[in-house]
Amino acid sequence: MPDPKDPLMPADDDARILAQTLLAKAQHASLAVTDAATGTPGISLIAFGLDPEGDPLTLVSGLAPHLEALRAHPDAAVMVGSPGTKGDPLTHPRLMVKVRARLIARGSPEHGPLRAHWLASHPKAKLYVDFADFAFARLTPVSAVLNGGFGRAWRLTPADLRPE
Amino acid sequence: MPDPKDPLMPADDDARILAQTLLAKAQHASLAVTDAATGTPGISLIAFGLDPEGDPLTLVSGLAPHLEALRAHPDAAVMVGSPGTKGDPLTHPRLMVKVRARLIARGSPEHGPLRAHWLASHPKAKLYVDFADFAFARLTPVSAVLNGGFGRAWRLTPADLRPE
Repeated sequence: MPDPKDPLMPADDDARILAQTLLAKAQHASLAVTDAATGTPGISLIAFGLDPEGDPLTLVSGLAPHLEALRAHPDAAVMVGSPGTKGDPLTHPRLMVKVRARLIARGSPEHGPLRAHWLASHPKAKLYVDFADFAFARLTPVSAVLNGGFGRAWRLTPADLRPE
Repeated sequence: MPDPKDPLMPADDDARILAQTLLAKAQHASLAVTDAATGTPGISLIAFGLDPEGDPLTLVSGLAPHLEALRAHPDAAVMVGSPGTKGDPLTHPRLMVKVRARLIARGSPEHGPLRAHWLASHPKAKLYVDFADFAFARLTPVSAVLNGGFGRAWRLTPADLRPE
């Protein structure tokens, strides 16, 4: 039975398909972290893609403050879905995903396959993917909310985010 | 003397003007909060504008999870500057501002002037600005980082964000 105080709807197939489409199309995302030094929120624009299993993935520079943040506090949140340049941005669909980040060291067995997969969808990254201070971070979904615009929002599980 | 480990440059006039332009043009922003229930990061798309003094301001629905988050943890971070639809989004300038939020109750002396100012720049908000569950949140800057694209980033103070 729905909670009358919960404005979020349970997932349905339309919501799943929209969420999966937003994830598949996104080449960048907003990332919310807990700042390592202050313990307060930080926010960054990140490169975004999916790993071979369909889970969110980013490539991070060691100079980016969010790399330190993710090391100190792996819980984070990402948002995908760019507002267009026309109309009210708040009516554009966007997906917010709470994630747990895991950094993938260069030289680890996971790194090579991620590198090849990432370059297939982000070819310009070949200019810096092999810099010593760049790392991949797998962003494993914990929960998600899809907002389709005013008055339409759904609660999604990690399974809802993956194509069958 | 610059810290060789700090990749951020001190503010200059070009950085101040770019930051102020990004703030003045933004009609929406990404907001990072600390979730009230879990204490982990949350992220939302918010309506964005400036208050009469030039400080960031947003209008929030009581149904939005970030309203509860800001009540529990006023420290937050906003990012403005939309990546365009062309080119590498990470080369587009964006401004990240750490803020402290203060909710403005309807009926408080501050609310009327904020309402009038907001509607001048966000006319469509007249459809819902007077709903009982909507509130303004002043987002007072604490510090900021302007990222102009790869390899160009500046550390800015709250004073740098305000036109003289």
